[in-house]
Formats: sequence, C-alpha cells, structure tokens
Amino acid sequence: MTAIPARVAGVKEVILTTPRRGAEPLNPAVMAAAHIAGVDAVYQIGGVPAIAAMAYGTESIAKVDKICGPGNIFVAYAKKLVQGQVDIDGIFGPTETIVIADDTAQASFCAADMIAQAEHDPLSTAILVTDSSDLIDQVELELELRLSTLERGDMARDALERQGRIVLVEDLDEAVELANRIAPEHLCMMVADPWTWAGKVKNAGGLFLGEYSPEVMGDYIAGPSHVMPTGGTARFNSALSVHHFMRTMPVVGLTPQTFRNLGEAAVQIAHVEGLTGHSGAIEVRLESLKARA
Amino acid sequence: MTAIPARVAGVKEVILTTPRRGAEPLNPAVMAAAHIAGVDAVYQIGGVPAIAAMAYGTESIAKVDKICGPGNIFVAYAKKLVQGQVDIDGIFGPTETIVIADDTAQASFCAADMIAQAEHDPLSTAILVTDSSDLIDQVELELELRLSTLERGDMARDALERQGRIVLVEDLDEAVELANRIAPEHLCMMVADPWTWAGKVKNAGGLFLGEYSPEVMGDYIAGPSHVMPTGGTARFNSALSVHHFMRTMPVVGLTPQTFRNLGEAAVQIAHVEGLTGHSGAIEVRLESLKARA
Repeated sequence: MTAIPARVAGVKEVILTTPRRGAEPLNPAVMAAAHIAGVDAVYQIGGVPAIAAMAYGTESIAKVDKICGPGNIFVAYAKKLVQGQVDIDGIFGPTETIVIADDTAQASFCAADMIAQAEHDPLSTAILVTDSSDLIDQVELELELRLSTLERGDMARDALERQGRIVLVEDLDEAVELANRIAPEHLCMMVADPWTWAGKVKNAGGLFLGEYSPEVMGDYIAGPSHVMPTGGTARFNSALSVHHFMRTMPVVGLTPQTFRNLGEAAVQIAHVEGLTGHSGAIEVRLESLKARA
Repeated sequence: MTAIPARVAGVKEVILTTPRRGAEPLNPAVMAAAHIAGVDAVYQIGGVPAIAAMAYGTESIAKVDKICGPGNIFVAYAKKLVQGQVDIDGIFGPTETIVIADDTAQASFCAADMIAQAEHDPLSTAILVTDSSDLIDQVELELELRLSTLERGDMARDALERQGRIVLVEDLDEAVELANRIAPEHLCMMVADPWTWAGKVKNAGGLFLGEYSPEVMGDYIAGPSHVMPTGGTARFNSALSVHHFMRTMPVVGLTPQTFRNLGEAAVQIAHVEGLTGHSGAIEVRLESLKARA
C-alpha cells in the first residue's frame, strides 16, 4: 500500500520495518507482500524505534527521506515529532467509515461493513447514515446476529458502543453534507445510482460506490493505496499515491532582455523591503548591460 | 507567493495574517500585494499567536485547512506543533543559496548574489562553489568592496563569517554533486551553458540558470512561488505550487462481476490477518450473488 506508489514514482530504494515478535521468524505473508511490491530490504524493528531509526539513521539502517504508513498512536506521534527531518505521508488516527445507505441497500451488507470497520480496534468508528428508518431496524437486527458469532465480536461491539452511530436523515443530500463536514477516511455509498453522488463528495479519504464496493475490498485488493487520511484530515490531505513521491523544481532562466524588462520593478520592491543588498544584485547587472549596449 | 498558487488551485478562501506594529497602520505595500493576489481578509496578528489562531480558530478568525509561508524559528516550530490539525507547506529554516560558478562568471555578480543572501539575517547561508581559483580571488575583493558600503553590511558580514563558504572544486561535476548532497533552497548556475546542467540537478528548492537569473529575481518577480524548502528538505519537499493545494480522492466502484472475480482472494488475505469481520463483509456478498445466479 506504500511501496508500490513509491516504486511507480521512481523512488530508488524502499525499505520496510516490521516488529520482531520474540523468537518468531518474520511473518511469511508480510515477506511475500514485500517481495511482490519490490521492497529492497526488511528490518526487524517496529514502533517508535523504527521511526527513530529511519528518521535519524543508525549503524545498520540508513536515514531515509520519507516515512509512510499508518501505525498505532505511538507511531503516529513519533512521525509527528520527526517530521521536518524527514517527510511523512500524514499523521493517522483510528480508522473510520461512514456508510450512506437508502432503502435499496441490503441490511446484511450494511451491518457486515460496520462490523468489518469496528473489529479493527476499540477506537474504530463505524457510522451508518440513512434516510430509511426501516433499514435502521433491519441493520440493528443484523448487527446483533453477526456480532454474536464473530471471533472479534467483543472488540467490534466495544467500538460500536463507543463511536458507532446510526443516523436518520431527511434525505441523501443531507447525508452527503454531513459526510463532507466529517471528512471521513472511508465513505461508502450504498444507494441507488451511486455514481450520481460522486461529484457531490468533497471531503473523503476514499470513496466506495455501490453495494459491491465494500471498504474491505479497498483494504486488500481494489487498487488504490489504502493509506487514507483520517480524523477529518481528508479536508487537506489525500490518499497515498504516486503524487506523494513526486517533486517539482522550478527553474528560472532569464535572458538579458527579460532581465532588463523586469529588473527595475524588482529593484523597487527590494527598496520597499529595505534590502539594498537585494537591489544591488540586480543593479550590478543592469549597469553591466548598459555598459555593453 | 502563497496566495496565488492557492487561488489557481481553486481554494475558496484565502486569509493573510500580518503582525501589528504598535499603533502603525498596516504596511501599504503588503496591503497592495494582498489585494492583487486576491486575499479575502487580512488579520492584524503575527507570529505564534497567528499560527495558533489559524490552526484552532478564535472568535474572530475561523479555523483554516492549510497554513503556508515561511517565518522565524518560533513560527516554524509553531507550524510543526499544529501540523496534523491543519496542513502546512513545510517547516522552513534560515534561507540558503549555493552559487556554482566557472571562470566565465563575473566576480561582481557572484559577490552581489552572496551578499543579497547574507543580508537576510545572521543565520543565512551563502556558499560559492567554483573550479576557478582566479574567480575566488576576485570575488573576495568584490565582497570587501561591496560590504563596506552596504546598509546592512554588518549583518551580511556576520552571516558570511558564520555560514558563508567559498569552495574550490576540481570541476563542475563535483560542484553539482556537492549541491545535490546539500539540497539547498536556492541553486544558481553562473556557468557557460547553464541549461546543460539542469538535468543533473536532483535536489534543490529552486534552480536559477545563467548570469541574468539571480536568486533575487525569484524573491520578487521571476514567477515561481519563492516559498522553497530549506535545510536539505528539498530532498523530499518542493517549492510551493498549485500542487500543494490539490487533492486526489480514489474512487472504487466494482461491478458484481469484478467483485466476484476478486472476492475470494480478498477473503484469503483477511483470513491471514485474522479478521473474520473483514472476510464476512465479502462472504455475505458472494453468497448473495450465488443465490441470485
């Protein structure tokens, strides 16, 4: 989710850190994913020490230019602290999903999506917003049914009780306005004609349209990087992509003629700022051009 | 330098903060620039309080989504602290310029450019890198000559003595390699055929090519935003531009057919992660598709 956009952007070296768990070998699934994604090196270190090592360098881990990927609250805060020394992709909080559904939505899908969100950890947020009170009744039944048999049922129930909400709205416009105000990490539109709403969504980390685009497909296989802005930061940040690994460098190359045309105005601005060393760097050239002419 | 890229990107509201200096009215040059750049509102507040007000909102200043522009060390640190609550354009340190010159360069231009950089403040860095020892002798003379008559001569001399350097290298390749390692805010190429070197510069905030493209033209009039990454952060950040104000939002919209093709693989990954709520959100849909078929 982080290595592939970096590789596509042409990043020369991509390393992965993953925590050592006692004497256990590295997780083979993680190693396979790293191999497929073209990771150059894997270091057995996790959490805050991993962030520190990548930000400042150690004897065995070279300082990097950018640290990407979500983590727990300690990792998030460590990333915030080292930002500036290195670049980071964002400061990510607990995961969150808003499902907007109308009376065409299947209650079992809505409930399953809320539970998938809630089973992450007790701080996860799963919110259903709908204009159908019938759907609310059905979803509440489905939630009970599914939670009672779920392996991580207690965790999911805990998260749903803390942050979970089911919200009845007048209509779907109100639902989308609410979502734009919250700017959730994930926004799922389980409504008739979901594509007609795409243009009205202004603030969301990722948008999932229709009943066969559950957020979990984004977790694993749907395509875009699943590193998405949380906690309302979708107002100013974007899901990780190749753009996060690209730079631009402005190039100024003035001909003597252009310089002559612009120089006098620049001298005046320098004088307003009281920087005669600045105006001097322009005047010495204007004089040289005059002497040449 | 910050408002115009924001406006071009379609940012709806742009505000400016500028410190109140006792009973003095607002600086008319600043107000004129704000008007031309299309700033919506100007607040008489500066420094750390301005950053705090924009990050969290006050009774009179609404919370913003992004804070841009350089400032002193207190402003830079305040921006670092609020980052995550709002976006920032970068954490900027003292300004710095590397001038790479060969024996075709005019010593008076080189000296004037170093002084323009050095007069900013005592922490400014001005470095000349050249393969010509003759040029070094001439630049040293020119520096003395110009510093002795400069209004902010003591400030510039102080900065040059602290961080200023004149470096003799074997050839221009070595000079550019050195600049790439430092990743300066500004890199000026005062060499024959400056454009041939453009492709070899990997890390610089802004690149200034040729004897009539002094960095001061970038300060005032040359075109690109002069908010450029300092302190080596050009390795991962870019000069402020319209890109900094654009967002992307990935949209996932799977057909039932695509979902059927991808679903099983996603279920397997969910099982490896031990998240049966995740696999459940896929399985409930696969079953529904099977029942329909």
